[in-house]
Amino acid sequence: MSTPAFRIEHDLLGDREVPADVYYGVHTLRAVENFPITGTTISIYPELIKALACVKQAAAHANHELGLLDAPRCDAISAACDELLAGQLHDQFVVDVIQGGAGTSTNMNANEVIANRALELLGHAKGQYQHLHPNEQVNIGQSTNDVYPSSLKIATWFGIAGLVDAMEVLRVSFARKAEEFKDVLKMGRTQLQDAVPMTLGQEFGTYAVMIEEDQQRLREAVLLICEINMGATAIGTGITAHPDYAPLVLKHLQRITGIPLVTAPNLIEATQDCGAFVQLSGVLKRVAVKLSKICNDLRLLSSGPRAGLNEINLPAMQAGSSIMPGKVNPVIPEVVNQVAFEVIGNDITVSFAAEAGQLQLNAFEPIIAHSLFKSVAHLRSACVTLATRCVDGITANVEHLRGLVANSIGIVTALNPYIGYANATAVAQEAHATGGSVYAIVLAKGLLTKQQLDEILRPEVLTRPTPLTRP
Amino acid sequence: MSTPAFRIEHDLLGDREVPADVYYGVHTLRAVENFPITGTTISIYPELIKALACVKQAAAHANHELGLLDAPRCDAISAACDELLAGQLHDQFVVDVIQGGAGTSTNMNANEVIANRALELLGHAKGQYQHLHPNEQVNIGQSTNDVYPSSLKIATWFGIAGLVDAMEVLRVSFARKAEEFKDVLKMGRTQLQDAVPMTLGQEFGTYAVMIEEDQQRLREAVLLICEINMGATAIGTGITAHPDYAPLVLKHLQRITGIPLVTAPNLIEATQDCGAFVQLSGVLKRVAVKLSKICNDLRLLSSGPRAGLNEINLPAMQAGSSIMPGKVNPVIPEVVNQVAFEVIGNDITVSFAAEAGQLQLNAFEPIIAHSLFKSVAHLRSACVTLATRCVDGITANVEHLRGLVANSIGIVTALNPYIGYANATAVAQEAHATGGSVYAIVLAKGLLTKQQLDEILRPEVLTRPTPLTRP
Amino acid sequence: MSTPAFRIEHDLLGDREVPADVYYGVHTLRAVENFPITGTTISIYPELIKALACVKQAAAHANHELGLLDAPRCDAISAACDELLAGQLHDQFVVDVIQGGAGTSTNMNANEVIANRALELLGHAKGQYQHLHPNEQVNIGQSTNDVYPSSLKIATWFGIAGLVDAMEVLRVSFARKAEEFKDVLKMGRTQLQDAVPMTLGQEFGTYAVMIEEDQQRLREAVLLICEINMGATAIGTGITAHPDYAPLVLKHLQRITGIPLVTAPNLIEATQDCGAFVQLSGVLKRVAVKLSKICNDLRLLSSGPRAGLNEINLPAMQAGSSIMPGKVNPVIPEVVNQVAFEVIGNDITVSFAAEAGQLQLNAFEPIIAHSLFKSVAHLRSACVTLATRCVDGITANVEHLRGLVANSIGIVTALNPYIGYANATAVAQEAHATGGSVYAIVLAKGLLTKQQLDEILRPEVLTRPTPLTRP
Amino acid sequence: MSTPAFRIEHDLLGDREVPADVYYGVHTLRAVENFPITGTTISIYPELIKALACVKQAAAHANHELGLLDAPRCDAISAACDELLAGQLHDQFVVDVIQGGAGTSTNMNANEVIANRALELLGHAKGQYQHLHPNEQVNIGQSTNDVYPSSLKIATWFGIAGLVDAMEVLRVSFARKAEEFKDVLKMGRTQLQDAVPMTLGQEFGTYAVMIEEDQQRLREAVLLICEINMGATAIGTGITAHPDYAPLVLKHLQRITGIPLVTAPNLIEATQDCGAFVQLSGVLKRVAVKLSKICNDLRLLSSGPRAGLNEINLPAMQAGSSIMPGKVNPVIPEVVNQVAFEVIGNDITVSFAAEAGQLQLNAFEPIIAHSLFKSVAHLRSACVTLATRCVDGITANVEHLRGLVANSIGIVTALNPYIGYANATAVAQEAHATGGSVYAIVLAKGLLTKQQLDEILRPEVLTRPTPLTRP
Repeated sequence: MSTPAFRIEHDLLGDREVPADVYYGVHTLRAVENFPITGTTISIYPELIKALACVKQAAAHANHELGLLDAPRCDAISAACDELLAGQLHDQFVVDVIQGGAGTSTNMNANEVIANRALELLGHAKGQYQHLHPNEQVNIGQSTNDVYPSSLKIATWFGIAGLVDAMEVLRVSFARKAEEFKDVLKMGRTQLQDAVPMTLGQEFGTYAVMIEEDQQRLREAVLLICEINMGATAIGTGITAHPDYAPLVLKHLQRITGIPLVTAPNLIEATQDCGAFVQLSGVLKRVAVKLSKICNDLRLLSSGPRAGLNEINLPAMQAGSSIMPGKVNPVIPEVVNQVAFEVIGNDITVSFAAEAGQLQLNAFEPIIAHSLFKSVAHLRSACVTLATRCVDGITANVEHLRGLVANSIGIVTALNPYIGYANATAVAQEAHATGGSVYAIVLAKGLLTKQQLDEILRPEVLTRPTPLTRP
Repeated sequence: MSTPAFRIEHDLLGDREVPADVYYGVHTLRAVENFPITGTTISIYPELIKALACVKQAAAHANHELGLLDAPRCDAISAACDELLAGQLHDQFVVDVIQGGAGTSTNMNANEVIANRALELLGHAKGQYQHLHPNEQVNIGQSTNDVYPSSLKIATWFGIAGLVDAMEVLRVSFARKAEEFKDVLKMGRTQLQDAVPMTLGQEFGTYAVMIEEDQQRLREAVLLICEINMGATAIGTGITAHPDYAPLVLKHLQRITGIPLVTAPNLIEATQDCGAFVQLSGVLKRVAVKLSKICNDLRLLSSGPRAGLNEINLPAMQAGSSIMPGKVNPVIPEVVNQVAFEVIGNDITVSFAAEAGQLQLNAFEPIIAHSLFKSVAHLRSACVTLATRCVDGITANVEHLRGLVANSIGIVTALNPYIGYANATAVAQEAHATGGSVYAIVLAKGLLTKQQLDEILRPEVLTRPTPLTRP
Repeated sequence: MSTPAFRIEHDLLGDREVPADVYYGVHTLRAVENFPITGTTISIYPELIKALACVKQAAAHANHELGLLDAPRCDAISAACDELLAGQLHDQFVVDVIQGGAGTSTNMNANEVIANRALELLGHAKGQYQHLHPNEQVNIGQSTNDVYPSSLKIATWFGIAGLVDAMEVLRVSFARKAEEFKDVLKMGRTQLQDAVPMTLGQEFGTYAVMIEEDQQRLREAVLLICEINMGATAIGTGITAHPDYAPLVLKHLQRITGIPLVTAPNLIEATQDCGAFVQLSGVLKRVAVKLSKICNDLRLLSSGPRAGLNEINLPAMQAGSSIMPGKVNPVIPEVVNQVAFEVIGNDITVSFAAEAGQLQLNAFEPIIAHSLFKSVAHLRSACVTLATRCVDGITANVEHLRGLVANSIGIVTALNPYIGYANATAVAQEAHATGGSVYAIVLAKGLLTKQQLDEILRPEVLTRPTPLTRP
Repeated sequence: MSTPAFRIEHDLLGDREVPADVYYGVHTLRAVENFPITGTTISIYPELIKALACVKQAAAHANHELGLLDAPRCDAISAACDELLAGQLHDQFVVDVIQGGAGTSTNMNANEVIANRALELLGHAKGQYQHLHPNEQVNIGQSTNDVYPSSLKIATWFGIAGLVDAMEVLRVSFARKAEEFKDVLKMGRTQLQDAVPMTLGQEFGTYAVMIEEDQQRLREAVLLICEINMGATAIGTGITAHPDYAPLVLKHLQRITGIPLVTAPNLIEATQDCGAFVQLSGVLKRVAVKLSKICNDLRLLSSGPRAGLNEINLPAMQAGSSIMPGKVNPVIPEVVNQVAFEVIGNDITVSFAAEAGQLQLNAFEPIIAHSLFKSVAHLRSACVTLATRCVDGITANVEHLRGLVANSIGIVTALNPYIGYANATAVAQEAHATGGSVYAIVLAKGLLTKQQLDEILRPEVLTRPTPLTRP
C-alpha cells in the first residue's frame, strides 16, 4: 500500500490538500499562494526561525506552568523548537519574505511546523491536530501581534550581535594599519584642498575610531529592542491571556535567548509601535553612511597610479578591466559603497512602513523585518570583506607622501602664530604664483631663520598641539 | 583514466584552479570570492543574462563584418548566445548581485561562459582559450563600460515590458469593477470627511485610469533607455574600436532585441551618465506611490465589517488571525503596499549610486541594476496578485452605501447654487447638531419644495456637472 | 562733514567697500554675493547665533588665560558675545542658510560682527582691525573646522531642549484625554478590521506613551552631540593650538552653555565625522514617523461625520471648504502630517551630506545644520499646535462607540478560551453571514449561558488580561 | 472721527475682528492662527500668487459668459487679478507655506484678497461682501480641490520655465569651456583609476550635454502638469458646475497663461492624483543628482594645488580658511552640491505626501507644492551661480595634464589591438613595477617601432575611434 501524497487540512476557506511530507500546513500553503512576490522565503533568515523557536518554546513552558498545556505536549513542542534552534527544518519556512497579514503567515508557519514535528515526536502523524493543534496549543495565549514583533526583536538582536563582531574585525584591521603607518607623514586635506600635515596613521586611526563609535551606537540601539510585548495578545489588552502569563513567558524567554528582555510597560503601545525598528534602522544607516565615507576615502587615496593621489595601494583582487590591460580597480571598497547605498534605501522603506501603521497595529512589519535583516546581513558581509580583502593588504607610498608635505603650501599654517596671518597669506600667495616652496620664500623674505623654520616644521610639531615657543 | 576535477586558468593574480565542469572561468571565480555579500547571484535576473547574450551576439556579428572575427568563431559565439537566450546555462552566472568593479565581473562572467560554450561547439575543451579567448575574441571591440550599461538597458526594457503587461491585468480588473459598480451610489470623501455623492464605479474607474496613465509614463520612460553606448569602449572615446563598429553593432542589436535602440550622440556622456536609470526609477516610484494609495483606499473602504466603513468586501484569502476567530484581513493590498515601500526605498539607493559616479564612469551601476530589477520584478508580481487575488473578487455593500448618501449632510452642496452658501451652511450645521436629515430640514425651512429637492438630488444630477435649471 | 557711506576692507581678492554701518565685514560680504541661494539668512536660527557667541566667548577667555589675548580685548569680545546672547545684532548674520565653504562664512560672519562690536566697545570705529582683528584675535586658536561643528552641536542642544518641552505639552494633552476617556469602551482594530474591545482612554494613553518614549530617545541622542572638537583647529591635529587650549575652552564653554560638553577623545575623527548629526536626524525622523502615525489615527477616528468612523470629534478650527457648506476638516493633524513628511525628507538630505564628506572634513555641514534646524523648529511648532488647537478639544461619541462593541463580531475572541477556536470561528462566520449578534448566536447554539456570557463580556474583563475562570 | 482699526467678519466659528487695512479676511486670519509652523508665507512664491490670479480671472470670465457673474463684478475681479499679476498685493498672501486643509486656506486667501480689492475698485469698502462675496462670487463654480492643484500646476510651469533658462546659462558656460579646452589632452579615469586619454574639452562637453538632456527631460515633464482639473469642483464629479464651465474656463486660462493647458479626461482621477508632481519631482531629483556629480568632478579635478589632481583651477571667490593662509576652496560647487542634497530630500517629502492621499483627495498638496517650489527656486539660483561664479572662470593646467598622459600606463590600451591583451598586460605590469614608461618598455621589448608608436599615440588617434591600420 502506497503512502498517500497528500493529507487534507481545513481552514476557513475550506478543505485543502497539503503534501504529506511537509511540516507546514494549510495556513502556510494559503500564504505561499497569496504572496508570490520575491521567490525568496523567510528561511534565508536563520535568526528569525531561531527567534520564533525561542518564543514558542518559552510560551509552551509558561502555559504548562499555568496548567494550560500538559507536560507531554509541552515537552514535544519544546523538543521541536530545539530542533529549529539546531538549524533543522528551516526549509519548512516557505512563506515569502514580503507578505501581507502583519506576520500572521510567519506565525502560522511556525505553529504548523512545530505542531507537526511535535506530533511526530509524540508518535502521531503529521496533520493529526486533534492531538496537538497549531493554533489551540502551540499558539496558546499568543497572537501574531505579540509573537511576531517579539520574534523580530530577538532575531534582530542576534543579527546585530553578529554585525558588531564583523565590525570588530574591520576595526582591528584599521587599528593595525594605524599603528603600521604611525610615522608616515602626509598632507591632510579639507574640502579636497591641501590643508596641513598629519600622519597616515592618524588617518587610518580615525577609521578605527569611527567604527568603534558605531559599534557602541549599535550596542545602545539594541537595548531598545529588548522590550517585547508577549502577553499583549491581539491589541495589547491581553485578552484571553492569563495575568501571570506575561511574566512567565518573559522569564523563560530571557533564559532561552540570553537576552536581557523586558516586558513593555504599556502593551497596547508596544503592540502598535515600530519606533525601535525605525531608530535601529537609523543607526544602521549611520553605520552605512560612515562606511561609505571611509570607502570613498580609500578609493580617493589610492587613485592613480600616476594621474591620481597615489598615496596608498589597495591589494589587487582581480583584473580590473576587460579592455585596459593591467588596470586594477578598488573593487572591494566599491562593493561596500553599494551595500551602504542599499542600507540607506532600506531605511526609507522602514520609515514608510512604520508611518503606515494604523490604530492598534502596524500591518507592515514584514517589510520592516526584511529591510532590517537585509541591512544587517549585508553590512556584516561587507565589513569582513573590506577588512580581509582590502584593508589588511594596504600599503603606503611613503616617499611620495613625504615629498608632498615638503612641497606643500599648507605648512605655512604652522608659521601663522610666528609671522602672523597677513604675512603667511602673502607667502602662500607667492608660493602659489611662482611654484616656489614656502620654506625658501620665508627665508628669502627674512621672516624666520633656517633654524627657526626647521624647529617649527618638525613632524612631531606639525601633527599635534604645541606650545608657542618663539624659536 | 579519470577526468581531472579542475582546469588551470590564469589572470593577473596568477594561476587558479577552476572546476572542470563549469563554464565560467578565473575572472568569475575571483569575483565570486571577492563579493560574498548577498548569496544571490545575477542568474535570478534572466532578462539580464538574455540581454548580455544579445549584446555579445551582436558584437560578434559586427566584428565578423569588420573582418576581426572569422566565421567559425562568430558562429560558435552566436550559437552559445542563442542557448542563453533559450534560457540555458543561466546557472553559470554566479557573480553576486551586489558586486564591485562597475560590472566588470558580470561582463567577464558572460565572456567566459560564452567562450567556453563556444569552444565546446567548436570541438574544443573548456579553457582552451588559444582557440577562442573570452577577452580577445568574445569581448573584441568592447569594454565593460559599454557592454554593461547597454545590457542593463536592454534587460530593463524587457523587464518593463513585462511590468506594463502586468499592469494591464490590473487595469482591466479595475475597469471591469468600474462597469459592474457604475450605478452604485456612494459618498465621496475629501480629507476623510464626507463630501458629495459619486458612484462606486467612478471610484474604481479612477484606479483604472491611474494605472493606464502610469503604463503610459513607463512607455515614455523606456524610450530613454533605448540610447546605448556600444562602441564607446573604455570611456566613450572609442579607443581600440573601429569607426564602423558602433553602427554595425547597433544594427545587429536592433534586429536581435527588437528594441528601437539608438547610439548615444555623445558616447563620453553616455558612458558616465546614469540619468536614464534615475528617471526610470523615479517613474517606478510614481507607480509604487499610486499603487500604495490605491491599496490604502481598498483597505479603508473594506474596513469593518461592523466598526469600519464597510463599503466593499475583499475576497477572503486566508484566515486572518491566530487568535481572533473568523477575522479576515486585507492581506493582498497589504503585500502590495509593502512592495511599494520597497520600491520607494530602492529609488533612494539608485539616487545615491547615481550621484556617486565620478569622472568618466559610474562604478555603482550594479546596485542601480539590482535595485531596478527588484522594483520591476516585485511590482510585476504585485500587480497580478492584486488583480487576481483581490480586485476580481471585490463585492459592494450596495444598500449600505445608498443609505449613507441619503443620510449625508454633504448633499447640501448640491443645493448651494439654489439656496446659497450661507443658507446651505445653516442647514448643514442644523443637521450636524440635531442629527436630522438635510432633506427634512430644507423642507421644514421652506427653502425648496419636495419636487425641487427630488429633482436636484437625482443620482445622475449629483454625480456629474448639470446646468442650473432653477427647478 | 557727512559720514562716509562705506569703509574699505581687504581680503585675498583685494579691496572692497563695506557699508559703514554694518558690523559684518568683507568676508561676510563676499559670502553674501557668492551664495544667493535661498534668500534666507542664518539669522533665522537664533540658537545658532547664540551658540557661536558662546564659543567665541569661551575661546577669548581661554586665550586670555593662555596669555594670548589681553584683558581689555578679551573683555570687549566677551561683552560683544553677551549682546549676541541677549538677542542683539542677530540681523548682522546675513550669510545664506545654504552656503559653500564648510561653514567658513558663518564663522567669518561671527568673527567680524564680534570684532566690530568689540572695537566699538573699546572706543574704536568699526573696521579698525589693527586694534582687534576678526581673524587674528577673535578667531585665535580656532578654525572654522572646530568652531562651526561645535557651534552647531550647541545650537542643536538648545533646539532639542525646546522640542522636548513642546513634546511635553503634547504628551500632557494626550495623557489628560486618556484619563478623560478611560471608561469609554470601543472596538480596537488591527489591519483596519474590527478586532477586540479596548477603551478610548487606552488608545489615547498610547499616544502619550509614544511621545514620552520619543522624548527619552531625544534626551539620549543629544548626549552624542555633547562631544565637541574645540582645539582641533584645521584638521584635528591641533596645529597652531596650545596644548592647554582645548581643556580651557571646554571649561569655559561648559560654564557658559550649561551643557555637559566633553572634548572628543580623537579630534581628527571628531573633525571629519558627522555621525552624531546623522543619528540625531534619525531620531527626529522617528519622532516624525510616530507623530504622523498619530495624526493619521486622529483623522481616521474623526472621519465622517456620517459616512466615517465618527468615533471622536476634532474641534472645528476653520471653515473646511470653499464649496461644501458646513464641512469641517482635520486641518491641524494635516499640517502636522506635512511637517513629518518634511522632516523625513530632511533626514535624507542629512544622509547625503554626511556621506559626501571627504578625507579630513565634511564640507557639507551647512546643509546638515539647515536641515536639522528646520526639522527641530517645525516639529516644535507642530507639537504645540497639535496639543492646543486639536487634542485639547477632542470629544468622544460615547454611545456610538459602545454600540459598535455590543454589535461587534470581534468580541467572540473573548469566548475563545471557553468555547474553543473552532466553535468561535463558526459563531463568527454565522454572525458575519446573517448579520446577527455574537451574543444571540452563542446563546442559540447553547455554547454558554446568558450568565456566563455576561460575565465574560464585562468591559473590565474585555480590556485586560484575566484568569480563565470557567464561569 | 477716526477710522476704525478693525472690521468684523463672520465664518462658521463666529465673528472675528480683521484689521481694517488688510485685504485678506476672516478665513485667512483663522489659517494664520492655525498654522504657525515655519514663519514663511506663501508670498515668497510669486509664481503661485500669479497662478492663482490667472485661475480666478479665467473663472470670472467663464462665469460671466455663463451668465453667473455680471459684467461689473467680472471686470472688478479681473482688474484685481491683473494687479496680482503685476506683482502687487503679494504681501497680503500671509498663510504659512506649510498648512493643513488641502490648500483651502490658500484658495480662501486668494478669494478674499481679490474680493476686497475688487470691492474697492467697485467703490465699496473692504469687507462689504454683500456687493461681492469671496466665496459666492470670486469662487463661483470652483472648489479648492480644482483651483488649488490647477494653480500649483501653472505656478510650477512658470517656475520650471525659469529653471530651464537658468540651466541654459550653465549649459552655455560648459559648452564654451568645452570649445576652449578642445585641444587639451588629459587622462580619463574610470573608478578613479587612470584609464585612457581624452581631451579636457571632451570632459567639459559632457557636462554641457548632461544639462541639455536634463533641460529636455524637464520640458517633457512639464507637459504632464498641463493637465488641469478646473470644473471638477469638490471631488471631480463637477457638482454645482455648469457643463459648459470647464471648457470655458480652460479657454480663458490658456489665453491668460500662454500655457497649452488641457482639461483632464477623467476629472475624478485628476482631482485626487498627484502622479504628475511625483514624476516632476523625480526629474528634478535627476537634475540634482547630475549637478551634484558635475560639482563632485569639478572639486576633484581642482583638488590640490600640490597634493591633489590639480588639473583645473576654479576662480577664487573668497578666502577659504580662518586659519590656513592663502587657502582657496571650491565654495561654489560646494553650495551647489548642498542644493542638490536638499532637492533629493524634497523628493522624498513629495513621495510621502503623495502616497498619503486618501480616497477622493490628497490633503497634502501644500507640502508637495512647498517642496517643489523650493527645489525649483534653489536649483535655479544654483545653476546661475555655478555658471557665473565658477565655470566661466575655470582655467586648465595644460602642461601638467599633458605630462600625465605621456607618463601614463593607460595608453597601453591603445596598443592592445596591435600587440594583444596579453602583451599589453605584461607591459603595463612592468611599467607599474619599475616606474618606467610604456613607450620605452614597448620599444625595449621590440613590440613596435618608434614610428609605429608615434602614429598610434597621436592625440587625435587616442581620443576617438580609429580604423586598425596596422602601422
